[in-house]
Amino acid sequence: MSIPPVPERPVADAAAILRWERADAAARPERLARFRARLAEASVDAWFGVRRESSRYLTGFRLGEGEEKVAGVSGQILVSADEVVLLADSRYRVQALEEAPESRLEEVYGDLPQRWPDLLSSLRPIRGGDPGRIRRVGAEAGAIPHAVWERLADAAPDVELVPLDGLLEGLRAVKEPAEVERIAAACAVADGALERLLPAIRPGVTEAELALALEWEMRTHGAEALAFDVACLAGPRAALPHGSPGDRPVRAGEVLLFDFGAQVAGYRSDMTRTLFVGEPTPRDRALHRLVADAQEAAFRALAAAAAAGRVPTNREIDAAARDLIAAAGHGERFGHGLGHGIGLATHETPSIGRRAAEAPLPVPSVFSVEPGVYLDGETGVRIEDLVLFDPAAHRLERLTAFPREWTVVG
Amino acid sequence: MSIPPVPERPVADAAAILRWERADAAARPERLARFRARLAEASVDAWFGVRRESSRYLTGFRLGEGEEKVAGVSGQILVSADEVVLLADSRYRVQALEEAPESRLEEVYGDLPQRWPDLLSSLRPIRGGDPGRIRRVGAEAGAIPHAVWERLADAAPDVELVPLDGLLEGLRAVKEPAEVERIAAACAVADGALERLLPAIRPGVTEAELALALEWEMRTHGAEALAFDVACLAGPRAALPHGSPGDRPVRAGEVLLFDFGAQVAGYRSDMTRTLFVGEPTPRDRALHRLVADAQEAAFRALAAAAAAGRVPTNREIDAAARDLIAAAGHGERFGHGLGHGIGLATHETPSIGRRAAEAPLPVPSVFSVEPGVYLDGETGVRIEDLVLFDPAAHRLERLTAFPREWTVVG
Repeated sequence: MSIPPVPERPVADAAAILRWERADAAARPERLARFRARLAEASVDAWFGVRRESSRYLTGFRLGEGEEKVAGVSGQILVSADEVVLLADSRYRVQALEEAPESRLEEVYGDLPQRWPDLLSSLRPIRGGDPGRIRRVGAEAGAIPHAVWERLADAAPDVELVPLDGLLEGLRAVKEPAEVERIAAACAVADGALERLLPAIRPGVTEAELALALEWEMRTHGAEALAFDVACLAGPRAALPHGSPGDRPVRAGEVLLFDFGAQVAGYRSDMTRTLFVGEPTPRDRALHRLVADAQEAAFRALAAAAAAGRVPTNREIDAAARDLIAAAGHGERFGHGLGHGIGLATHETPSIGRRAAEAPLPVPSVFSVEPGVYLDGETGVRIEDLVLFDPAAHRLERLTAFPREWTVVG
Repeated sequence: MSIPPVPERPVADAAAILRWERADAAARPERLARFRARLAEASVDAWFGVRRESSRYLTGFRLGEGEEKVAGVSGQILVSADEVVLLADSRYRVQALEEAPESRLEEVYGDLPQRWPDLLSSLRPIRGGDPGRIRRVGAEAGAIPHAVWERLADAAPDVELVPLDGLLEGLRAVKEPAEVERIAAACAVADGALERLLPAIRPGVTEAELALALEWEMRTHGAEALAFDVACLAGPRAALPHGSPGDRPVRAGEVLLFDFGAQVAGYRSDMTRTLFVGEPTPRDRALHRLVADAQEAAFRALAAAAAAGRVPTNREIDAAARDLIAAAGHGERFGHGLGHGIGLATHETPSIGRRAAEAPLPVPSVFSVEPGVYLDGETGVRIEDLVLFDPAAHRLERLTAFPREWTVVG
């Protein structure tokens, strides 16, 4: 099955970065309008968000992965009918002014609970009415620590805090062209890094050495950060769906699995290749064929939907790949879902798996297609590509360009 | 003021790592006994912890920074009168068996709320009584998302969930010899990395290039990870107490501030040096002298306390440095605290600052001493070293060995 690669994957040069920043700024009013409409449907007057992705998407303010832990309240936002209030302590003030000029900046520290009633009464309610008449505030209950939630609830007892996760994630799952460009740029960085790494792979080198070398290739060739820690797993360790690179040397006749991704201008890529070190065993070759066929089956289902302008469900696409693996007797050895959305975060909506709540795929969206089969204690194969799926435009394109055929190294 | 460097900083070779693992295993029963005594004082029957540091300290199970986000419940623990129950999904099972052999492993997924009542009734209460008579469970409310807290509370309505943060942090602040060794080993890695970087520093090279090169030096010379992202800030940008390295080239006649640390066998270091690129201006030289003097004043206060076997408070040590900066008219330009504890996390108890709750320093403890003066838009100087403070043994030693004198590079 050949699905076409995306025609062009931009490089994150200064011009591209400026273009993307402008596209974000231009898109933000529409993002906010859609979000406010959803908030009104959920009968809240305002919304309090603490995830770095929420802040980046709605204001432009940037935090690194995990930086929420040290940033305090910096980057947290309140969305009202006509404003986004961005909280930042003095350390982040200059950055906030620069990156989020459309937001109202409020200097807040550990005193957020004390400031909370006044902050709320300065807001114009989304459901209409005068400023200060805030009755219900939606909030990211899946990310706000319980202790903080309780302090805020106590600080304004007449305001109801309403757990409200997932609304913004649903909007973020629908990708704008400038977002797709950045994911494609991150894919190109990862592709190039693996290609340059190939000559270094030989028996005797360790997983940890290869993982570090691959990271270095990405970070010195366009990645501002990793999407996640590089996984490099050899031989029987490739059967661990999770696993950190260790001091185990790569051996001839074994598989070598790389799962990795880059971050470019805030957006991420994710790819997996299972290479053969020296001539593969018949078992490993058959397994690779099966997994590649399963991935193709999913591509075929997506291509048919795209051609017909039809929107399939997440479970339907998962089943297209899974049925083939199950028919080969390995159903129990494909324990995870087929894929996940990606963007500002590595794992986003949609979740594509048999256990996910059934739902139509977002349009247009970018997600991974990553079937795998794992033989405990023996070997494992996973192949993962990102695709852009846009049935409204009859488009299905592969953002990952690295060859999907089996590759012998070493 | 010369306080002696620690006599020996070990290298994390296989023998050292094995020795540290054995020391942890030997210390764990005593750690748990102390923790259970505190829990009993807090009138709870069990404790639920979700922070990676808690799990590592009490069971040996290891998660990387931020890995909680992808690990699901894996690494979360329940402490009862006679057990530690370690939750892990199938991805983390092998790792849990290997790293936390003394714990009872329970395979749990997103179904934790459904499993919660049975898990609790399998526990023997810390306050005494038969298994299953669990009435109050302390929990890390500062880290558990509100949505999770509510689901657990609903799942076992007859069990009271009690916010209980800080108890374990208080115990972790008192360092065992094998913990100090690892922090010292991490300091040695960071010292060596900056020393090897010096020849690469010259006008024209960018902050981001130097930060990446310094990271690379650490990660290829003994660091299993960074303690945090390297800060490298040149000239006026050194005045930002927070700030990410950018594409700004280093210029002659400016300061160049590095704030960075390594992680070795789970434990971390943290150091700051402000170098001069070419001959310093009189202003920068005077500022460096003032900050160095302020750091020395804190060292002197600590040395006097150590010699006398006396335990000072956090605020007393902060004031020793701060008073000197204030007397020079720069009090307003030293906006942060003097230091913080360090260990499995980069920022730990004790917090040493004028706004921290006044408390005696833990004994023995390891913390940073890092005064700084920042002239907005102009320049900034910070000097940071880690010290081991043990007045019970009349010991005060510097774990950071890099010269504290001003250093001209480029």
